[in-house]
Amino acid sequence: MKCHYINCDGGAVIFREYEGRALCKRHFIRAIEQKVKSVIRKNNLIESGDSIAIALSGGKDSSVVLYLLKKFFGNRSDIKIFAMAVDEGIHPYRKETLEKAKEFCKKISVPLHIFSYEREYNVEIDKLMNSGKNKGQSACSFCGVFRRDVLNRKARELGANKLAIGHNLDDEVQGILMNYLKGDLLRLARMGAKTPIKYSDNFIVRIKPLREIPEREIALYALLRKLNFSLAECPYGHDSLRFEVRDFINNMENKHPTTKLSILRMYDKLQPFILKSLENDSKVNSCKICNEPTSGEICRKCQLLEFINGQEQ
Amino acid sequence: MKCHYINCDGGAVIFREYEGRALCKRHFIRAIEQKVKSVIRKNNLIESGDSIAIALSGGKDSSVVLYLLKKFFGNRSDIKIFAMAVDEGIHPYRKETLEKAKEFCKKISVPLHIFSYEREYNVEIDKLMNSGKNKGQSACSFCGVFRRDVLNRKARELGANKLAIGHNLDDEVQGILMNYLKGDLLRLARMGAKTPIKYSDNFIVRIKPLREIPEREIALYALLRKLNFSLAECPYGHDSLRFEVRDFINNMENKHPTTKLSILRMYDKLQPFILKSLENDSKVNSCKICNEPTSGEICRKCQLLEFINGQEQ
Repeated sequence: MKCHYINCDGGAVIFREYEGRALCKRHFIRAIEQKVKSVIRKNNLIESGDSIAIALSGGKDSSVVLYLLKKFFGNRSDIKIFAMAVDEGIHPYRKETLEKAKEFCKKISVPLHIFSYEREYNVEIDKLMNSGKNKGQSACSFCGVFRRDVLNRKARELGANKLAIGHNLDDEVQGILMNYLKGDLLRLARMGAKTPIKYSDNFIVRIKPLREIPEREIALYALLRKLNFSLAECPYGHDSLRFEVRDFINNMENKHPTTKLSILRMYDKLQPFILKSLENDSKVNSCKICNEPTSGEICRKCQLLEFINGQEQ
Repeated sequence: MKCHYINCDGGAVIFREYEGRALCKRHFIRAIEQKVKSVIRKNNLIESGDSIAIALSGGKDSSVVLYLLKKFFGNRSDIKIFAMAVDEGIHPYRKETLEKAKEFCKKISVPLHIFSYEREYNVEIDKLMNSGKNKGQSACSFCGVFRRDVLNRKARELGANKLAIGHNLDDEVQGILMNYLKGDLLRLARMGAKTPIKYSDNFIVRIKPLREIPEREIALYALLRKLNFSLAECPYGHDSLRFEVRDFINNMENKHPTTKLSILRMYDKLQPFILKSLENDSKVNSCKICNEPTSGEICRKCQLLEFINGQEQ
């Protein structure tokens, strides 16, 4: 199959069902980069004066975010970029991905800061899960809370005002549908391109430059650009609800090849109303233990640390 | 299994996964009737002075609506109730269901008015589909528009200010999710208990007393009450998107038995904000041909009639 661009003789590397056209390597790469630029522009994700922390896992999505932000903004003197990685204590998975992250940052000359749950919380996920102190709770239910806390807190301490994350179109649409099903309006409100809407100075705004790019296109882009990313998957990563939702959406997308984008567009139309409906509910307090932002009195992270450490007494 | 009610010795006729309890016939019937009353009350579906047309297909859902509204309001002198049925020209399906509708209305002493597409539009669905004049369009794409027109117009001419329809929890949740998937904000806005919010005197308000009752419970209620309903299904009724969405939701409900109610509850929180956003868009004009309400210049029904009849010239 040939590239659908007029006057292009290149062999196609991908056929986009949702557009009904095939693209060669050069035009595919250009299409991805233009799309990411347009997402950044139309959502005002990045502005002059920004200091942007990029959450880097070593996998394809976050490596592409880092690569593109460096490419687009690396020689802008008014915009600062650095990477952050988190060691949860999940091995050999994290050892391997951290190596990739270090190599990659060195190669493209971006500073990398690494933080660990061990140092921050005296918790390592492998040890926690083996000790039985998780009391049947999944690794993800700890890990997600700790990661959010450490990324937000350290990005702020390092002077960042934005945190870029690698969520792609598939991640976003799965998250939107999961929250529709669970009826979780508060989490649903956070599924935008720029989130949360800044209602506390202690919250770093999270931005998602890849949210309109399908997962398989990010993988292809990373391969074509020969980015040095890891294919390792977290051994604890089994969210059965997400898997079911993913399969349903992929199935729908096969039959109606614009389903994912429709869901995203609809969400983007709804989001302002969701935010309005929450305006009165979403007060932000400071946690009485650690002073980090929380909707209650004690933040979820401190509750989990109490849950883990309280059992020692 | 025994009924979960304290001091009840009855054998269970149903186990409600979403409540974690079993109910005997007597307590199940009471639970259904109380739920329908509470839906009517909390949404202000029926008020003193109302004249209510009930759209009766002869199937289980609309038969239960008719039965319950007659039971609850049949001897209220300030509330008027009658039934309407539509003959689309789909046989033997409609012949059978109309017989059931007539028998049922006679039995419970409710006046029934029958209208036909043949008389109203000089169209019969079977003939239309066999003639090729549908030009590949599905029967539903004509039938839905005509049904909405005739029910609204005739209910109004018969002095009704409300039209009660049999949508159950499954119908509602499927419709909500389909509109999330398709990104159709206008149709999404119409998924409430009372719809559309009256923005034209020519629109009869449609009310859905069964929208919080799962389909299988309506079937069970109709059986236990020995209502004389038809099990016939329309031969054209194949909406593949709806079937996929239905299977997905039923699958999710099996694994997480409050999924359907969660989807409905969240929608109900969002709906007021969606309606607000559409307030300015939803101007209602009068169709230049038939004078019925429409958002454009010519209503969809007149467009379809032109589509069918224009081919004769």
